[in-house]
Amino acid sequence: MNKLSHYNAAGEASMVDVSGKELTKRSATAHAFIKMSAEVLASLPQNKKGDPLQVARVAGIMAAKKTSELIPLCHQIPLSHVAVEFVTRIEGIEIHATATTEAQTGVEMEALTAVSIAALTIYDMTKALDKSIEIGDIYLVEKTGGKSGVYRRSDAK
Amino acid sequence: MNKLSHYNAAGEASMVDVSGKELTKRSATAHAFIKMSAEVLASLPQNKKGDPLQVARVAGIMAAKKTSELIPLCHQIPLSHVAVEFVTRIEGIEIHATATTEAQTGVEMEALTAVSIAALTIYDMTKALDKSIEIGDIYLVEKTGGKSGVYRRSDAK
Amino acid sequence: MNKLSHYNAAGEASMVDVSGKELTKRSATAHAFIKMSAEVLASLPQNKKGDPLQVARVAGIMAAKKTSELIPLCHQIPLSHVAVEFVTRIEGIEIHATATTEAQTGVEMEALTAVSIAALTIYDMTKALDKSIEIGDIYLVEKTGGKSGVYRRSDAK
Amino acid sequence: MNKLSHYNAAGEASMVDVSGKELTKRSATAHAFIKMSAEVLASLPQNKKGDPLQVARVAGIMAAKKTSELIPLCHQIPLSHVAVEFVTRIEGIEIHATATTEAQTGVEMEALTAVSIAALTIYDMTKALDKSIEIGDIYLVEKTGGKSGVYRRSDAK
Amino acid sequence: MNKLSHYNAAGEASMVDVSGKELTKRSATAHAFIKMSAEVLASLPQNKKGDPLQVARVAGIMAAKKTSELIPLCHQIPLSHVAVEFVTRIEGIEIHATATTEAQTGVEMEALTAVSIAALTIYDMTKALDKSIEIGDIYLVEKTGGKSGVYRRSDAK
Amino acid sequence: MNKLSHYNAAGEASMVDVSGKELTKRSATAHAFIKMSAEVLASLPQNKKGDPLQVARVAGIMAAKKTSELIPLCHQIPLSHVAVEFVTRIEGIEIHATATTEAQTGVEMEALTAVSIAALTIYDMTKALDKSIEIGDIYLVEKTGGKSGVYRRSDAK
Repeated sequence: MNKLSHYNAAGEASMVDVSGKELTKRSATAHAFIKMSAEVLASLPQNKKGDPLQVARVAGIMAAKKTSELIPLCHQIPLSHVAVEFVTRIEGIEIHATATTEAQTGVEMEALTAVSIAALTIYDMTKALDKSIEIGDIYLVEKTGGKSGVYRRSDAK
Repeated sequence: MNKLSHYNAAGEASMVDVSGKELTKRSATAHAFIKMSAEVLASLPQNKKGDPLQVARVAGIMAAKKTSELIPLCHQIPLSHVAVEFVTRIEGIEIHATATTEAQTGVEMEALTAVSIAALTIYDMTKALDKSIEIGDIYLVEKTGGKSGVYRRSDAK
Repeated sequence: MNKLSHYNAAGEASMVDVSGKELTKRSATAHAFIKMSAEVLASLPQNKKGDPLQVARVAGIMAAKKTSELIPLCHQIPLSHVAVEFVTRIEGIEIHATATTEAQTGVEMEALTAVSIAALTIYDMTKALDKSIEIGDIYLVEKTGGKSGVYRRSDAK
Repeated sequence: MNKLSHYNAAGEASMVDVSGKELTKRSATAHAFIKMSAEVLASLPQNKKGDPLQVARVAGIMAAKKTSELIPLCHQIPLSHVAVEFVTRIEGIEIHATATTEAQTGVEMEALTAVSIAALTIYDMTKALDKSIEIGDIYLVEKTGGKSGVYRRSDAK
Repeated sequence: MNKLSHYNAAGEASMVDVSGKELTKRSATAHAFIKMSAEVLASLPQNKKGDPLQVARVAGIMAAKKTSELIPLCHQIPLSHVAVEFVTRIEGIEIHATATTEAQTGVEMEALTAVSIAALTIYDMTKALDKSIEIGDIYLVEKTGGKSGVYRRSDAK
Repeated sequence: MNKLSHYNAAGEASMVDVSGKELTKRSATAHAFIKMSAEVLASLPQNKKGDPLQVARVAGIMAAKKTSELIPLCHQIPLSHVAVEFVTRIEGIEIHATATTEAQTGVEMEALTAVSIAALTIYDMTKALDKSIEIGDIYLVEKTGGKSGVYRRSDAK
């Protein structure tokens, strides 16, 4: 029997009650991909003192901390660690973010928010070069801790 | 010669100076797609008083107003209009957001932020059913106003 | 001898020091009433896909999480649960919000902020119909947990 | 024929499109009342260096600037002036807030948010003395500017 | 061998992982000085109902709670106590802020942010009198708790 | 006759009414200095992919946009440009920030907030090396636009 998170018995939106849940170490890793032309990719490191990936990393980390302000029914979770990594591929940039906490609920949304905002930041800093840049493949790669235990996406790229 | 937005002559990150630019009516429409199984899709309208799309719509609109807090080098733009629409497809939900302003710079990032946060909100509210839900196809559909004029994505779905 | 909260020995505003207090489960329920004409009330459910109470519920929940940003001397409290409920009466809409936490200090302000912002959101969405709508009866209904124990308002409507 | 603000033709929540509207000087004044016992009222000025009304005034002004973050469908409006005033009455404290702007839409919500958060701040700072304090009579007193012209509440206290 | 905080093995910015650290009581006190002419100093208490130090105290306390939104790699720390004190000297105003928590990491940045924003608020409220006002001597006075134990600045003024 | 900004006739704190003021191009440049030992300074560029100045630049720019949330009586000003520059000196790092707008009031506080938060970010990222790092010399270097015209600090370093 399926049941949507965040709805009470009467079907009204509410924050899930986690007050009975255990305070355990939890982590989540998310993935995103920003597809861009070879020309745009090649231009990224041409800046002497700055590069879009550094700005995007900071944006992703700060966004992870803002998750509960953005996603209406997310709990406020003090993160013990956030990291955002980039891997340059032929067709664009792969983004990975990991968030960790010791809390009563998981941090999937924090990791997913981090990769999404990091990707949007790269888009923002390259959009003058190419308006057709596309963001995709935003998904949860892995999740540990909590009652449901470890989840690992089968086809994680 | 390509030049990345948001970098000054020395290659240091800074907000682009828009003070010489014209204050014109500008709009942007963005697209995102959240891919989910038929089972999850079918469960969405089962709530008597609430549904995830309504919460996601509010989240997307509020996020559009927060864009300059999330994307480090975005200007603060007072939006004159924001709308977020959903179309249910066989494989998931299509999200469209349109943002409008009268300002010195465009609102692509506002529209893209709206669809991204709306998609993440749907993910948050359905993740108990299926952890493999995936968000993709985040791109700019259309943009009007400003010096560069109208842009319309050729293969907009 | 009465002593105002949030003032130190010298009478200067400061956040009350809760570092010696016990981390216990605490909850608070607050009430508000938004008085509107029969005509305005009747118009609320006329919307096919949306209704002001749904938007107000999301606004109330999000505001509860923002309480410490709004009320200068409130502590930052991670909420384990927030719910906002509406009851339509002849003269308007009754709003109840409950907030729960496991913390060193209570969540009265979180519940009161939730009902207040939910009421203001309903006002915002109906003000085109009637500018004389009025919000009142904002009070604490019940409070549990902490050193002072259970409080229940005698004349709670 | 009544029509709720903030809903488009399909009944979906969206920010009202104000892009065709005139940029005019607009102001709004709101009222709130916080009812407290004579004992609590008498204790307010006993602080040498601080008093709750000063903190509440700052809170109200800061909240007015945050209105569009709190009320989901409110436009972001740069305020040219905000003032929060208190009048001590026998049964409690009367709060008035005035907000002014030059914008395409009114500032009722900014004035109403200011009085509400100012009242909640007074509540927060006096709740240790009396948990039954009550906030009410939150309404729009006056509104000037914009297409609809001047509104003045008939029974404004 | 020195190692910068907030960088992982690859030299990429990330929030330091504190998940293995002990949850202990920690406090930090910071100092700032705002240098102003005798004339400006003398004008401060001339206000019947308000004074810049009261507004600055509220601003400093609220800023302490916002530290993790401002300093990119700071952890979100729920503060159990914040206090901001002023001492009027011949050449200006000395500002002290103390922050306390029970957390896995220290609150130096919270105390330093509080004094900095309190000083900027005083600047803002006196800048019409004198544009050459200067803020300086921002440093950590004392720090307790955590693995590194007590730190006390040798030449704390 | 001196008069403090931000106080009305009754001496109560309020946002200065700028509604009669001209909308002109205005800019402000601020300065700060973060004093650190030669050893700490030398360690800054040792990171392959990141450096504290890049993170601090992003933090300063984002903080400039948040000024009206931090300084209670500041107006919300949409900035048309913000830049943060660093100059490494023998005794530490000099920070300059410039903010530009077309508005009814100046942007001194935005420039001052940018240098302050940039300095605090550098502190945060180097504090593991040396707790005695000190921030000072925070002042307005230059201001253009508005009724009061150009101001240039006489002894600007």
